Amino acid sequence: MKICIINGPNLNLTGKREPETYGQVGFDTFIPELQKEFTHVEIEYYQSNVEGELINKIQEAGFTYDGIILNAGAYTHTSVAIGDAVAAIKAPVIEVHMSNIYAREEFRHKSYISGAARGVVAGFGLGSYRLALLSFTGY
Amino acid sequence: MKICIINGPNLNLTGKREPETYGQVGFDTFIPELQKEFTHVEIEYYQSNVEGELINKIQEAGFTYDGIILNAGAYTHTSVAIGDAVAAIKAPVIEVHMSNIYAREEFRHKSYISGAARGVVAGFGLGSYRLALLSFTGY
Amino acid sequence: MKICIINGPNLNLTGKREPETYGQVGFDTFIPELQKEFTHVEIEYYQSNVEGELINKIQEAGFTYDGIILNAGAYTHTSVAIGDAVAAIKAPVIEVHMSNIYAREEFRHKSYISGAARGVVAGFGLGSYRLALLSFTGY
Amino acid sequence: MKICIINGPNLNLTGKREPETYGQVGFDTFIPELQKEFTHVEIEYYQSNVEGELINKIQEAGFTYDGIILNAGAYTHTSVAIGDAVAAIKAPVIEVHMSNIYAREEFRHKSYISGAARGVVAGFGLGSYRLALLSFTGY
Amino acid sequence: MKICIINGPNLNLTGKREPETYGQVGFDTFIPELQKEFTHVEIEYYQSNVEGELINKIQEAGFTYDGIILNAGAYTHTSVAIGDAVAAIKAPVIEVHMSNIYAREEFRHKSYISGAARGVVAGFGLGSYRLALLSFTGY
Amino acid sequence: MKICIINGPNLNLTGKREPETYGQVGFDTFIPELQKEFTHVEIEYYQSNVEGELINKIQEAGFTYDGIILNAGAYTHTSVAIGDAVAAIKAPVIEVHMSNIYAREEFRHKSYISGAARGVVAGFGLGSYRLALLSFTGY
Amino acid sequence: MKICIINGPNLNLTGKREPETYGQVGFDTFIPELQKEFTHVEIEYYQSNVEGELINKIQEAGFTYDGIILNAGAYTHTSVAIGDAVAAIKAPVIEVHMSNIYAREEFRHKSYISGAARGVVAGFGLGSYRLALLSFTGY
Amino acid sequence: MKICIINGPNLNLTGKREPETYGQVGFDTFIPELQKEFTHVEIEYYQSNVEGELINKIQEAGFTYDGIILNAGAYTHTSVAIGDAVAAIKAPVIEVHMSNIYAREEFRHKSYISGAARGVVAGFGLGSYRLALLSFTGY
Amino acid sequence: MKICIINGPNLNLTGKREPETYGQVGFDTFIPELQKEFTHVEIEYYQSNVEGELINKIQEAGFTYDGIILNAGAYTHTSVAIGDAVAAIKAPVIEVHMSNIYAREEFRHKSYISGAARGVVAGFGLGSYRLALLSFTGY
Amino acid sequence: MKICIINGPNLNLTGKREPETYGQVGFDTFIPELQKEFTHVEIEYYQSNVEGELINKIQEAGFTYDGIILNAGAYTHTSVAIGDAVAAIKAPVIEVHMSNIYAREEFRHKSYISGAARGVVAGFGLGSYRLALLSFTGY
Amino acid sequence: MKICIINGPNLNLTGKREPETYGQVGFDTFIPELQKEFTHVEIEYYQSNVEGELINKIQEAGFTYDGIILNAGAYTHTSVAIGDAVAAIKAPVIEVHMSNIYAREEFRHKSYISGAARGVVAGFGLGSYRLALLSFTGY
Amino acid sequence: MKICIINGPNLNLTGKREPETYGQVGFDTFIPELQKEFTHVEIEYYQSNVEGELINKIQEAGFTYDGIILNAGAYTHTSVAIGDAVAAIKAPVIEVHMSNIYAREEFRHKSYISGAARGVVAGFGLGSYRLALLSFTGY
Repeated sequence: MKICIINGPNLNLTGKREPETYGQVGFDTFIPELQKEFTHVEIEYYQSNVEGELINKIQEAGFTYDGIILNAGAYTHTSVAIGDAVAAIKAPVIEVHMSNIYAREEFRHKSYISGAARGVVAGFGLGSYRLALLSFTGY
Repeated sequence: MKICIINGPNLNLTGKREPETYGQVGFDTFIPELQKEFTHVEIEYYQSNVEGELINKIQEAGFTYDGIILNAGAYTHTSVAIGDAVAAIKAPVIEVHMSNIYAREEFRHKSYISGAARGVVAGFGLGSYRLALLSFTGY
Repeated sequence: MKICIINGPNLNLTGKREPETYGQVGFDTFIPELQKEFTHVEIEYYQSNVEGELINKIQEAGFTYDGIILNAGAYTHTSVAIGDAVAAIKAPVIEVHMSNIYAREEFRHKSYISGAARGVVAGFGLGSYRLALLSFTGY
Repeated sequence: MKICIINGPNLNLTGKREPETYGQVGFDTFIPELQKEFTHVEIEYYQSNVEGELINKIQEAGFTYDGIILNAGAYTHTSVAIGDAVAAIKAPVIEVHMSNIYAREEFRHKSYISGAARGVVAGFGLGSYRLALLSFTGY
Repeated sequence: MKICIINGPNLNLTGKREPETYGQVGFDTFIPELQKEFTHVEIEYYQSNVEGELINKIQEAGFTYDGIILNAGAYTHTSVAIGDAVAAIKAPVIEVHMSNIYAREEFRHKSYISGAARGVVAGFGLGSYRLALLSFTGY
Repeated sequence: MKICIINGPNLNLTGKREPETYGQVGFDTFIPELQKEFTHVEIEYYQSNVEGELINKIQEAGFTYDGIILNAGAYTHTSVAIGDAVAAIKAPVIEVHMSNIYAREEFRHKSYISGAARGVVAGFGLGSYRLALLSFTGY
Repeated sequence: MKICIINGPNLNLTGKREPETYGQVGFDTFIPELQKEFTHVEIEYYQSNVEGELINKIQEAGFTYDGIILNAGAYTHTSVAIGDAVAAIKAPVIEVHMSNIYAREEFRHKSYISGAARGVVAGFGLGSYRLALLSFTGY
Repeated sequence: MKICIINGPNLNLTGKREPETYGQVGFDTFIPELQKEFTHVEIEYYQSNVEGELINKIQEAGFTYDGIILNAGAYTHTSVAIGDAVAAIKAPVIEVHMSNIYAREEFRHKSYISGAARGVVAGFGLGSYRLALLSFTGY
Repeated sequence: MKICIINGPNLNLTGKREPETYGQVGFDTFIPELQKEFTHVEIEYYQSNVEGELINKIQEAGFTYDGIILNAGAYTHTSVAIGDAVAAIKAPVIEVHMSNIYAREEFRHKSYISGAARGVVAGFGLGSYRLALLSFTGY
Repeated sequence: MKICIINGPNLNLTGKREPETYGQVGFDTFIPELQKEFTHVEIEYYQSNVEGELINKIQEAGFTYDGIILNAGAYTHTSVAIGDAVAAIKAPVIEVHMSNIYAREEFRHKSYISGAARGVVAGFGLGSYRLALLSFTGY
Repeated sequence: MKICIINGPNLNLTGKREPETYGQVGFDTFIPELQKEFTHVEIEYYQSNVEGELINKIQEAGFTYDGIILNAGAYTHTSVAIGDAVAAIKAPVIEVHMSNIYAREEFRHKSYISGAARGVVAGFGLGSYRLALLSFTGY
Repeated sequence: MKICIINGPNLNLTGKREPETYGQVGFDTFIPELQKEFTHVEIEYYQSNVEGELINKIQEAGFTYDGIILNAGAYTHTSVAIGDAVAAIKAPVIEVHMSNIYAREEFRHKSYISGAARGVVAGFGLGSYRLALLSFTGY
């Protein structure tokens, strides 16, 4: 099973930015750990701050992977184009967020991705990725 | 570890109502299965169609359980009172939905519970409950 | 033919409350009269001020009766949960209102029930129930 | 008793347009049938696609008939002028719709006529007219 | 003089929940104290988390008491039905809130009860009840 | 000087409809009186309930008269097309209303005509027409 | 007959400000001319940029004059307090505007005064005041 | 191939009204030219300022022509009824506008017709009709 | 204890304006009575129709009095500046209204003062001032 | 004549994505065909999923080509920046869409590009590009 | 060069009110310092809590000074009249705010002044005035 | 002191695009001039039309520079992601705009950046950058 984890803008700062909110562990540490836990899954990790490059990656992974775990960061709330990409591909997409976006500013409650995603996991910090992976693999 | 699963209105019809959407398994079948899978967790199940009885249960479980998994059904979108109950208790609450509520009618995108919940899991059918349990127990 | 008439909050005050608007006849008088007029129909009458009990009744009647006449009173405008119950059952539901709700306050123009109901009858006082019954029986 | 049935735009296509929604019977067939059923009522039928001609007819019938059954079609949702005409006349007006307009697009939920009408009947196909007539005649 | 104090959802947690906001005194302590202060008034106290039971109580007290002091809690902002009950009864109703609801979230600024209440007292903690009682008794 | 007075829907009922609001004098009485008062002005009067016929008349008068006094009645609030006609012609248009439309329902506060009219006179009953004429003639 | 003309903020700049819109004649020139035309009317003129002083004047004139001609300028669109003053007094008030406010920015379409005024005259420059006076005096 | 061009309100003024916007050529000149260019198409031209007559024509042409080119003018933005007519007929409808309506006032951005039309062409002056014709005929 | 009662626009008309709503007693009569009842409180009374003078007074009293009772009248709904003044001072402010503002027009439901006030008392006529005073003094 | 066709996000999937909606022909097939049809036009084709690269291209082509045909895909509805680029360049821009965007979700009805484009063509599949080209070349 | 600094409501409390937000230096200290720094500029300082007096001052300074630095405080968000005054005068106006108003409550994001001001400086505390002065003088 | 000036979409056209609005000087001329004026500051200049590249630059400069001057152009009004980047970094950010964005279209009044910026300077053309620099350096 091949799963692609795609992270959007500013998530490359995780571990550096507001650690009281996002924790002190970055994705360079987290992804290898996750890979160790899920030995039977091939995990690819991709991050970009550029909306269009995220679309490129979703299009590419969307026809070659068994699933995508997508945290589009702030683009979640503004990008019709990413939502369209998610709707256009074959691989199922799980939308994840580290923080509970519904407990934050009003404009973060809206997602252009949810409508095309299989499911949503939000609020568990890095654990959100773990739960999303479990939704693909069982446990 | 003691976890209370609380279901709101019309979820007692699961397995009977619109099986193409909600599947053919009801909670009377599902909960015992779940208990078998999670042998080290004490699971209580409660369902009511009455908003105030759900509040009663949340208040009671909120000071005696280690966590609550709450699917408030349609009250999710209208009940300030349930949201207040979730905010008032000690036990962490995971909000779950079987369907991807964000892919349904506009008025189902709003949740009065999310703001006070630890996290949200939606769209995985009965699997949403499983993932929520895993968020408490690890795996 | 078995028809269940279900009345929501404050309709138990009919005949007492604002008689110039709602008339001086209550449902304890009206339902027996209605039963006499429709001798070939078995009419059950149920009233509750509790939203969840109305859902309980709709769920029960919705699989055992030939039709439901539902005046959800003020819950009409606020209850997604009752609307969901109406959508989940087998029996057809006619939404009725004694007053012309569209000639009253703005917030009474919205109905969460209409979308799932077969039809709507409003503005004929107790006659709204009679017309709804006729829609089931013919005349 | 003299009742005038007034139909608005596109209702002349009934029986031809979208028969799965509106049935296969047009008003040229239906009105004579209705007249046969209600032998003690003098029924006049009028249809126009022109908003102002509907107003002309409402003004005329409104001072000479015992009641009007009005299906203003799409003008229901846009015509302040027809609503004013209904408010200005003496004869009571029953607003009817064949489909359940509340289960259709948002903009069809608003009626400029309801506020001035005695009552509303919607969702019973041609039966809506029958129920409206019964509201005048009893049965 | 007989006055009924009716409390809505989550107010049974007063004294336990967020004491920095609501203080450390619950209603089981407060009501007897209040009764001692107002020796010439017969005070009844009622609390429920169930919207419909609050309506039941308002209907009952509304025809047998000289006044009602109503803190409908979160239902204040969502319940058309409680507002209708207040409008339907004979006894005057004073709407009270312990916190200054107008200084909280936007959705707590709206009240379906105020329109039918005689007056509103908000922001004085348990003192809001005392002021409401004084509005009935003078001092 | 040639002035065309154009009246929209339901204004043919003036004198008959709600006399306590609109007075007991109709336009068949009023226009000849007005003509007598303004001997040096050639007054034409036109009324129609049909939006498009009003447009026809505005187009015709708009290139042959010195001014138009237009009371578009309820079309004032809904007709972009009449507003466009007013903007397209050469003759200046004075918008008049008998009642003070700004003291009535919210939807009557909006005018699609005002933006293209030279001025607005509202609230003086039939006197609104007199003042509009005076704005053309002086006194 | 005693009429008080009350002008609000920035109207003291008339004749200086944007002459292409407001003309080149100020009120110090215009009011004496107007007084000469209407010899049988006693005209008082008052202008202030201070909202509360306008209220003071309206209150004073409202019980001693036969009528008020009020151009509240920009306060028209924001001042509930001036609207309340107009509603509280005995003398009838005509609301006037020099420009056609309905052809300007959206926020100038709303008036808190119109609801309590007898009538409205807008768009005739200084002629608006003349027409308003004529509405009191006839011609 | 038979194509019906249907024009709505005020389009009869084209060539006269605001030539800097709409050009100096009217439809009496343009249609014959167009017919000459498209020799293998039978073009009918119809214009009316009356909403209902446009509906009549759409209904008639909609079952007898191969296509309709519809410029509903200002009714585009207000007429649910014309939109319903377009949806009810068999012939495909191309919505055209001479000006780029999306670059004009906000209320001209909404179209009740687009949803039922096959396609939209706007902004090319009379050329919009030519392009619409080409969409039927190829070139 | 020194308490300053500050009244806003049009409240100087109390006793004259709409006595059926506001009663027949003005503040010149009421304040001395109130002073007699509360012998141990030094009451100052201030009224102005000018928003800025109310701010001046709030600023002055806000650092020298033990409390302020503020009825800002219509400025309640429009004055961010008065709300800021209330937030900037030391003395606690009780917002009072004679009528139940929540039962009046929609725009009177909003208060820019409540957010910064300690509490709100509305609907008890002149008694609102009495209750506000009691909230400072006890009884 | 040199025309640049610029396609936005996800349009590179045309022919693969939802063929029942978008057809089975991609742009790699379509553009050469188009070039063959329009032998006297030099057509350049550019596609990117990156908003900023589209802006780069619009800026470049906007000063060197005779026209641009722009299908900004989902960015149409969200990108003020692309709209600004269209407004800043010299070459005229025709906005095209393959589907009838006005018949899709509400958020696809808004275009930030239309206001600055010369014209709009939508709903003709790949034919939309052909019609846009014809608007430049004539036929 | 003569520059007039005009401050609106509650800015006289600067240095006293919420020093953690507004600093501990009031304008009586700051203005002389500023004058010392800008020796070649004649600075006048004016403050009032009265909206109309601010308008008076703007009108006066607007024709006699080389520029105005205006911090209208809370009136920024509510006063159409001050905005009109700014638009009516000759001197350029720089709008300043000490705090970053865009990072505060929603209703403080709207300015009726910005539209007529030359520029805006916000968020630099007293430094905002310094920067505004520099915009007039250069440095 | 090291300051990074970051410009967003279309600002590379400054000096070419609409010179009557933006002047005739581009940033290639302006930045060297600015550097000369501020000899004690190290100025870096960066421009991109790509939202994500702007985020990359903000992240990089945000931990290595003493301050950022950011003109995000049209992304100001749509980019939650850039706003998040500004909030995540250490260096203070001054938001600048050449034009007075508050005097332009409604959608340009909203900024996702202001909430996280230290201050805002708008309306001074290239001078806005100068003032922003002065806010860092003093003068």
